[in-house]
Amino acid sequence: MINKLCKKITNLDAPIVVGLDPMMDYIPAHVQEAAFAQYGETLEGAGEAIWQYNKAIIDATADLIPAVKPQIAMYEQFGIPGMIAFQKTVQYCKEKDLVVIGDIKRGDIGSTSKAYAVGHLGKVQVGSKQYYGFDEDFVTVNPYLGSDGVNPFLDVCREEKKGIFVLVKTSNPSSGEFQDQKVDGRPLYELVGEKVAQWGETCMGDQYSYVGCVVGATYPEMGKVLRKVMPKTFILVPGYGAQGGKAADLVPYFNKDGLGAIINSSRGIIAAYKQDKYSKFGAQNFADASRQAVLDMKADINGALGK
Amino acid sequence: MINKLCKKITNLDAPIVVGLDPMMDYIPAHVQEAAFAQYGETLEGAGEAIWQYNKAIIDATADLIPAVKPQIAMYEQFGIPGMIAFQKTVQYCKEKDLVVIGDIKRGDIGSTSKAYAVGHLGKVQVGSKQYYGFDEDFVTVNPYLGSDGVNPFLDVCREEKKGIFVLVKTSNPSSGEFQDQKVDGRPLYELVGEKVAQWGETCMGDQYSYVGCVVGATYPEMGKVLRKVMPKTFILVPGYGAQGGKAADLVPYFNKDGLGAIINSSRGIIAAYKQDKYSKFGAQNFADASRQAVLDMKADINGALGK
Repeated sequence: MINKLCKKITNLDAPIVVGLDPMMDYIPAHVQEAAFAQYGETLEGAGEAIWQYNKAIIDATADLIPAVKPQIAMYEQFGIPGMIAFQKTVQYCKEKDLVVIGDIKRGDIGSTSKAYAVGHLGKVQVGSKQYYGFDEDFVTVNPYLGSDGVNPFLDVCREEKKGIFVLVKTSNPSSGEFQDQKVDGRPLYELVGEKVAQWGETCMGDQYSYVGCVVGATYPEMGKVLRKVMPKTFILVPGYGAQGGKAADLVPYFNKDGLGAIINSSRGIIAAYKQDKYSKFGAQNFADASRQAVLDMKADINGALGK
Repeated sequence: MINKLCKKITNLDAPIVVGLDPMMDYIPAHVQEAAFAQYGETLEGAGEAIWQYNKAIIDATADLIPAVKPQIAMYEQFGIPGMIAFQKTVQYCKEKDLVVIGDIKRGDIGSTSKAYAVGHLGKVQVGSKQYYGFDEDFVTVNPYLGSDGVNPFLDVCREEKKGIFVLVKTSNPSSGEFQDQKVDGRPLYELVGEKVAQWGETCMGDQYSYVGCVVGATYPEMGKVLRKVMPKTFILVPGYGAQGGKAADLVPYFNKDGLGAIINSSRGIIAAYKQDKYSKFGAQNFADASRQAVLDMKADINGALGK
């Protein structure tokens, strides 16, 4: 799957991923109203609104982008109907041949971590049969519990040829509270980065490992260091756009082959129609605004990369 | 809810929590067969088997225990039908007046962390209406992202009078890879513990804070130190029994008031019938074996506490 991701990024000339993080107040009134007319102001209604909103954005952008990153929390908050909307979104993106990165940030130990890995990347055994649960291509994983939490994911990744992105340095302001703490003179996130590189060596694709990492766009100096610590690790970079990360800052996250990083934008794409810049599209044409925002993001990043 | 937990522990003289972590191979053949007869060897069949298994154990133990801790990964691996079994389990336990600790180990930032908090502890807004998603009483939270990840949970906790347990020192062998790393001469988990105590001060119940923490039974020396660092923090202690933690080791996790800690056992209770000690019950009477295992665990821990 990491090979597929590399190939799609190269073919589309687009090292970008669209974050499908549907907040209710991003969803245009006409989409909400149509869903509520059918299901009422219920969790089912919310699930339907999310699904229709996602579907329109996916239809409008799928030919331009290699991957999507649905943030499961935005679905999980609506209980079972939200989880159904998540599952429908994942399946639909896969039908469109998009690589699906489930932003689930799970992390536990032993058999529990295995259950998450099986449920999101692999197949679960029921009697004599096997079934996929949520069936993403990649998921994000929290490293706080150490190798015991990550190894069960690696086992499933090897079996399914799928991958993970391990949190190393997150994009938020307080990420430093623990991640930046100095351990033998070096920040903790560097130590985590080294572990990621080690885990990655056991799961190699052609050029890059199935084990990637997350480093926020808001910390470019750290991105530069981590790029060197983990040369064969793909970096998933949140924080571009709405969170303040700029294209010029992202150059150090890439290797000389032009690969090695994939930049996420969520709000900046899926709620583009709310920005002044795209207001001419109007709420009715929110998906066209998202398409234009993808084109602009691609130009912005490729410009910074000198392409 | 922390006041309710303290009261129930005192009234029942039982500082214990039953981990509802249903692995398929714990579930007796007759329970699986009945579920598969109804739904086939499907995810729905697995969900039904889990639910019937849980229900029997809850019915057999609810009068003895203050709380349960369903581990969501064990449900999530079965996709949507698994999540429905989780939800039914939570609801049923609440009907039985048990305190429900959702072992979800979520952790993200800002609006995403808020979505998890809302979905598991609070109410989500849909148009003009509000709904509970999964509606646990407490959840476990991963601290790697710092205050940005925890604060949204605290907001919901204050509103709903519910609580969280933040991972500080987990019970697994590799927990030391990052958690034990020395920061200014002290291990990282101590720093996390101090933060937990600070977060907790903003969310106080009568004696203890709504903000608890997780410290594994397998590290009693660290439990002793952390008890002092966080005097008003309730400690959720996994790792007793099957993972190797002994009752005598657990004494330092408690305060002098006999409160301050709640000891989890999962496999040791829910799969008790598989142990030689309880083999006389047989698989048909698995729930009776669980009841006896609860009684034995209570005696073991109260014995160590000199009660």
